[in-house]
Amino acid sequence: MTRTPVPGTRRRILQTAARLFKEHGARAVGMQQVVEETGLGKSALYREFTSKDELVRAWVAELHDHAWAQIDSAIARHEGDPARQLLAVVEHAQESTQDSDAHGCTFYNTSAEFRDPGHPGRREAVDHLERLRERLSALATAARATDPDALADMLMLIISGLYANAATLGPSGPAARSVAAARILIDQHVPAHVPTPEGRRA
Amino acid sequence: MTRTPVPGTRRRILQTAARLFKEHGARAVGMQQVVEETGLGKSALYREFTSKDELVRAWVAELHDHAWAQIDSAIARHEGDPARQLLAVVEHAQESTQDSDAHGCTFYNTSAEFRDPGHPGRREAVDHLERLRERLSALATAARATDPDALADMLMLIISGLYANAATLGPSGPAARSVAAARILIDQHVPAHVPTPEGRRA
Repeated sequence: MTRTPVPGTRRRILQTAARLFKEHGARAVGMQQVVEETGLGKSALYREFTSKDELVRAWVAELHDHAWAQIDSAIARHEGDPARQLLAVVEHAQESTQDSDAHGCTFYNTSAEFRDPGHPGRREAVDHLERLRERLSALATAARATDPDALADMLMLIISGLYANAATLGPSGPAARSVAAARILIDQHVPAHVPTPEGRRA
Repeated sequence: MTRTPVPGTRRRILQTAARLFKEHGARAVGMQQVVEETGLGKSALYREFTSKDELVRAWVAELHDHAWAQIDSAIARHEGDPARQLLAVVEHAQESTQDSDAHGCTFYNTSAEFRDPGHPGRREAVDHLERLRERLSALATAARATDPDALADMLMLIISGLYANAATLGPSGPAARSVAAARILIDQHVPAHVPTPEGRRA
């Protein structure tokens, strides 16, 4: 039996783990369950991921890449209008919680499930949140917000609040007011937000 | 050996469970660990709580009572000024996340950890959130907000967002802007908020 990694093995494990983690929560799923559901041997799994912690970290890192690509795409649709881009990030987040099987934000959930600050999955999740915060702050600065960091932080509250509410009271509960709340907060910090047809601020 | 419940046994179990659940998350703690840390026998534990699910439910119910008493107290300090009372609920939430060992909102976390909608602990947690939403809506109505339900929902977003952010990026992160964000949202919905010295709206 060769010990060379089989192409696609890592992918297959991550896909199975992602499905199980999403459905049950990452803590609730054991490595044995991942082994059984992938149909691979235990040794194949441990060749790719030395521990459950490492599997959780890789899963969170992949979700980060996926979320980041979606945020990039939402922002790109409003090139040259950073105040509108801020709103687009919240719009994207609200849309992404419309699934009836939404279980909140993986990045926050992973932090709640793994409370050791040194847990690799938790560190990966916190890193994602820090990068999102920095990105919102950069957009708020570009939008000439009166206090860019304050606006970015307030939008972080809305985004995390909408995931938490969608997971508990459903997407038609408080989560449905996220974009409206974000608009009020953006308008308060960027009072003269009137984009020109070229997308530049008037 | 008598099968009559020992007074204080239930209390002792709940206190131990609360400490363990807070530190590790409710899902991560097994009944065996609760048995060991209370120093009681397994049978004593199962006489009081027939299952882990039931123990989680009782723990969430107790936290609800505790949180509700604190919200009552925060609201009572601003009798006759419902717009100020709305802000007081957010102020209380922000203060309660100042502990460095804050792990977010138990009600949201419990929902994230137990994803079965029928889980007794999850149902208790969702019930708490629904009651908080109704309470905020009643206060917003009393404050003559232009859209009381919208304001209540936006404050739900802020409150849940502040717990999630405090647990991940710390109390001095985005969570520190919660009261400021709430003030903007309240002012937007209750524009002429000028309480008279008697506490009535001017």
